[in-house]
Amino acid sequence: MIIVMKNYATQQQIKEVENKLIELGFKTHPIYGEIKTVIGAVGDKRLVDTRVLIDMTGVDSVIPIMKPYKLASREYKQEDSIVDVSGVEVGGKEVVVFAGPCAVENREYFFETAKYVKNAGAKILRGGAFKPRTSPYAFQGLQEDGLKMLAEAREMTGLKIVTEVMDPRDIELVSEYADIIQIGARNMQNFRLLQEIGASMKPVLLKRGISSTIEEWLMAAEYIMLEGNTDVILCERGIRTYETSTRNTLDLSAIPVVKEVSHLPVIVDPSHASGTWKYVSPMSKAAVAAGADGLIIEVHANPEKALCDGPQSLKPDTFGQLMSELQVIAGAVGRSM
Amino acid sequence: MIIVMKNYATQQQIKEVENKLIELGFKTHPIYGEIKTVIGAVGDKRLVDTRVLIDMTGVDSVIPIMKPYKLASREYKQEDSIVDVSGVEVGGKEVVVFAGPCAVENREYFFETAKYVKNAGAKILRGGAFKPRTSPYAFQGLQEDGLKMLAEAREMTGLKIVTEVMDPRDIELVSEYADIIQIGARNMQNFRLLQEIGASMKPVLLKRGISSTIEEWLMAAEYIMLEGNTDVILCERGIRTYETSTRNTLDLSAIPVVKEVSHLPVIVDPSHASGTWKYVSPMSKAAVAAGADGLIIEVHANPEKALCDGPQSLKPDTFGQLMSELQVIAGAVGRSM
Amino acid sequence: MIIVMKNYATQQQIKEVENKLIELGFKTHPIYGEIKTVIGAVGDKRLVDTRVLIDMTGVDSVIPIMKPYKLASREYKQEDSIVDVSGVEVGGKEVVVFAGPCAVENREYFFETAKYVKNAGAKILRGGAFKPRTSPYAFQGLQEDGLKMLAEAREMTGLKIVTEVMDPRDIELVSEYADIIQIGARNMQNFRLLQEIGASMKPVLLKRGISSTIEEWLMAAEYIMLEGNTDVILCERGIRTYETSTRNTLDLSAIPVVKEVSHLPVIVDPSHASGTWKYVSPMSKAAVAAGADGLIIEVHANPEKALCDGPQSLKPDTFGQLMSELQVIAGAVGRSM
Amino acid sequence: MIIVMKNYATQQQIKEVENKLIELGFKTHPIYGEIKTVIGAVGDKRLVDTRVLIDMTGVDSVIPIMKPYKLASREYKQEDSIVDVSGVEVGGKEVVVFAGPCAVENREYFFETAKYVKNAGAKILRGGAFKPRTSPYAFQGLQEDGLKMLAEAREMTGLKIVTEVMDPRDIELVSEYADIIQIGARNMQNFRLLQEIGASMKPVLLKRGISSTIEEWLMAAEYIMLEGNTDVILCERGIRTYETSTRNTLDLSAIPVVKEVSHLPVIVDPSHASGTWKYVSPMSKAAVAAGADGLIIEVHANPEKALCDGPQSLKPDTFGQLMSELQVIAGAVGRSM
Repeated sequence: MIIVMKNYATQQQIKEVENKLIELGFKTHPIYGEIKTVIGAVGDKRLVDTRVLIDMTGVDSVIPIMKPYKLASREYKQEDSIVDVSGVEVGGKEVVVFAGPCAVENREYFFETAKYVKNAGAKILRGGAFKPRTSPYAFQGLQEDGLKMLAEAREMTGLKIVTEVMDPRDIELVSEYADIIQIGARNMQNFRLLQEIGASMKPVLLKRGISSTIEEWLMAAEYIMLEGNTDVILCERGIRTYETSTRNTLDLSAIPVVKEVSHLPVIVDPSHASGTWKYVSPMSKAAVAAGADGLIIEVHANPEKALCDGPQSLKPDTFGQLMSELQVIAGAVGRSM
Repeated sequence: MIIVMKNYATQQQIKEVENKLIELGFKTHPIYGEIKTVIGAVGDKRLVDTRVLIDMTGVDSVIPIMKPYKLASREYKQEDSIVDVSGVEVGGKEVVVFAGPCAVENREYFFETAKYVKNAGAKILRGGAFKPRTSPYAFQGLQEDGLKMLAEAREMTGLKIVTEVMDPRDIELVSEYADIIQIGARNMQNFRLLQEIGASMKPVLLKRGISSTIEEWLMAAEYIMLEGNTDVILCERGIRTYETSTRNTLDLSAIPVVKEVSHLPVIVDPSHASGTWKYVSPMSKAAVAAGADGLIIEVHANPEKALCDGPQSLKPDTFGQLMSELQVIAGAVGRSM
Repeated sequence: MIIVMKNYATQQQIKEVENKLIELGFKTHPIYGEIKTVIGAVGDKRLVDTRVLIDMTGVDSVIPIMKPYKLASREYKQEDSIVDVSGVEVGGKEVVVFAGPCAVENREYFFETAKYVKNAGAKILRGGAFKPRTSPYAFQGLQEDGLKMLAEAREMTGLKIVTEVMDPRDIELVSEYADIIQIGARNMQNFRLLQEIGASMKPVLLKRGISSTIEEWLMAAEYIMLEGNTDVILCERGIRTYETSTRNTLDLSAIPVVKEVSHLPVIVDPSHASGTWKYVSPMSKAAVAAGADGLIIEVHANPEKALCDGPQSLKPDTFGQLMSELQVIAGAVGRSM
Repeated sequence: MIIVMKNYATQQQIKEVENKLIELGFKTHPIYGEIKTVIGAVGDKRLVDTRVLIDMTGVDSVIPIMKPYKLASREYKQEDSIVDVSGVEVGGKEVVVFAGPCAVENREYFFETAKYVKNAGAKILRGGAFKPRTSPYAFQGLQEDGLKMLAEAREMTGLKIVTEVMDPRDIELVSEYADIIQIGARNMQNFRLLQEIGASMKPVLLKRGISSTIEEWLMAAEYIMLEGNTDVILCERGIRTYETSTRNTLDLSAIPVVKEVSHLPVIVDPSHASGTWKYVSPMSKAAVAAGADGLIIEVHANPEKALCDGPQSLKPDTFGQLMSELQVIAGAVGRSM
């Protein structure tokens, strides 16, 4: 940590900051410049709320040097992590595709969709049973009936199952059905949920909050990992910006950034980011080209009948074509599919 | 709702959209322009996910006309709502000040702070017992012990109590102690929590999410109100923007906007928005001048010892001075304090 | 255009709005709903500032139906435009790479870089002679000496030349040297510059403003095109968001969006967006996979000696490797390189 | 400047960074932590592009300590600057109001508006003669005819005149008429324009760019001041965020931030920020309460006839009422009007 003193800070003020640092358990190394003095503070004190220093007289700013997360960092674990989802490896050489409808709703369409995505090469079936919806008037999901349909579809197709949990009280129930549990963007900082998922030992798909920094996202992963569960897959799903021509702005740069600072696998959700199916294919290809470990794509056998997010769902044939195009892209960046 | 057709839409496509609208329960009114055709669809169908229309061939865009919230809207209730917090009225002529430390931690400092803010004119005491923290390594709150201290401080000072709930399972416990329950920015779209607070009948202080639109914020209020609890106070606390010289950007324009579209009271939290105590006084005055119904301000008897958000807390004497300055501003805009 | 009336608008208010519309040259089509009345106004009146309507009593909102740009729109010209840059076609089947240093500075490094990028397959050489810099203390470019070096490098390598103009007074001079003129992000709404470039008939590389919407970007293109110059290539270069781990957030979704609403070619600048060379390769591949018509990449023979943007420049060998990887990606999306 | 080395940086890498720093003219002070080494570099080297350091092997990040602007900084000049606009002092005890229509257009309305705002207490008359417009199809201003009307209105009322310059070639002409020249938000980083205004010695009203940080804004002021012109007044006019219920988000926190880091006066434009006249009064009061040195408000004798920005203009009577309310607010914060 570096404490930058104001230009006109007195010797007495500098001394008081040093004393405070020593009290907090740091070793101090002042550097006296012509204009400014800065104080280097040596010590790994993640638990100290060092913002108290900024309030001391003569202090201009406090600059952290250590990243605030540890278990999620590349410095802590240098090799890439591979998360095993009931036998499907995410984070290895293969680019893994998660696909399915936004919500589990109509039995017939759901099984039809499941078979299609299986045949096209998806490995994991998505489908929401508990749905977070901006409007209280919107369809909220089939809940346990949805989970049962997911399990049935797994039985039928061999696909693994991912579904979302919104409430800590549902973790146990959902864990009985799902192979991997999704934490949605709106719950990325629902810390109780993170802690209890962390204690559950199920693999977790952790979506980035709609306005979360990459650092906050990794801190959310840290919450889970600190409880013992290290099977975390990150999912970039678009961030909120001023641009309105897409629902959110897919931040594909997050992929190389995450790969640099963390060892966790990262996949991309082009469907929620763009909000319209037309942009899903180009953005899927871009994600794989940028180094994503996987994709989660909305596919619906009959999007016009969907109760949720129909407009951003691919029809099965479009999805099938995309999957074959993605294979070539994956190959071009040294991955398989 | 207005459906805008593409320039080259055919008669057949227009007909199909009309049929779809009729199927969804709307009456249709096509307008044939020289270049474009638009179709007016009459009906108040909040439950219909009309996004399905955008996916139809020949459709360019779908424009909603009705606001997506109802109970929270000014159109539903034209007069201002006043929320009664155990006898303190928020939303009336008086500008109500909520004050206290970020978290309840040290017994001595807490009671000292409570007495100070009472004497300076605050009506409601804030203090977190359950703390949402970005870092799992940070202080997480005293939980029930904190609630007990809050109740003790109420006993001692007559101040009403506001404190945050992060988990639906804590609502019952917190309701025994608090006069008004806070939903924090990170939980503004924790829909389960909203619904269960909505069923609890305690007054609610609903903070705006860090990147929520005003519309989404009112939809969150709608979640609560739809369960029967109409005692909702909105709280603007800064939004996330690209500017880094303050922690968040306090969006004071939200006050006149909310006043125009909703009947709910709205207060402002200048402490979390700015992240540094120096900006709290000017922004508090600005909030009252802009028409806020109240303020929630962090005050700590000894900010340098605070385990949470010390740097943004006012010292008691600064707070006292601010309170007397605010009285003049309140008077200037026809309010009392 | 649709005028939405407030719920409680009177017949008289509706009549007055209709009269105003007729005065402005529109035909009116009111639709009376149970709750709201909306008025359809038929006519293509881009010149009318219809915001005056929103101020009329009883009006809730005014919704434009027509896009505000015309010449740049896909509706005006359905087939893709190809821009001829002294014989190099941008917007056709081939993905065209523009490469070179941020600024023309050191003679030796510049020519060395030019030869390298030529050999690696770039078609157009970039290099700034007039540099817009945030700080008045930073290197501002070699100006005409830089232009001469650019021309020399063209002579030597056969590469075409792109360079930036910041001031209308320099257009004539720069046009003598450059094959295509760049309008930088900071000047995207320097309307005088746009108009005079529009009159110059040189091909233009129009960068997106750092916080411009796609619509504003196309309006800037419209400024140029309206003067008669239709040879406009758009360039996505990252937008300003709250995320700080990259300099800007590269908005690759802009590619499919632009392709849908406009006929103009669009290329991507991954160097300025990311601000660090490590992210340039993955983002370049992603851009081509998403359908970009070209890339503009910073390459410097000796980045550590660069006076401008060294840290984001690729070294020649990294660039060479990227170019061969890009060929495979281009092939995978039906393009050549 | 602080150079943070990566955890696993070698002694050799640390040595090379030190050598590079010495070569750039810094004195080095390495601090060896248990996990990380950081190197303090002493020297005020604004001219060095130190980003080259970040590219060296073993370097994690480079942290600047000095602010990038100097003449505009509070550290350079501790007392508040007062800018004299032909006898009207901005930045002193008095809150100064600039008012008038967006554009000078209709002779009769313009003089009527000028007289009104004079009588209501405004000191400076605004009115655009050269208008930057997003659309090439919109009204672009009366140019020299507009300047003449401005001068005539000054003659008639005694008000001082502010008007915008968009092109360096117009500075001389506009300087003949205006008392203070406005640089609009879109031109805040038109560096040629800044430099030539800097050489002109006319007072400057420098609007903040729509997505500029406060630091970039002060760097723009530095461009002007470095040429010798220190009469710069800053103007906050709203920033671009994701929120769409106002045209931009007025960042009133910028006032106390600017007051802390700079000695320059700062005024606020609530009209362009909100985009609708209804929000202008509350935001004007908020701005004064937050410590603004002035306001620039759009007033139009007949907003419904305005060719530009009618919907955000106050009518004379609303403006008159606002002016009397502002006096009370100004008094409450120790200012006069």
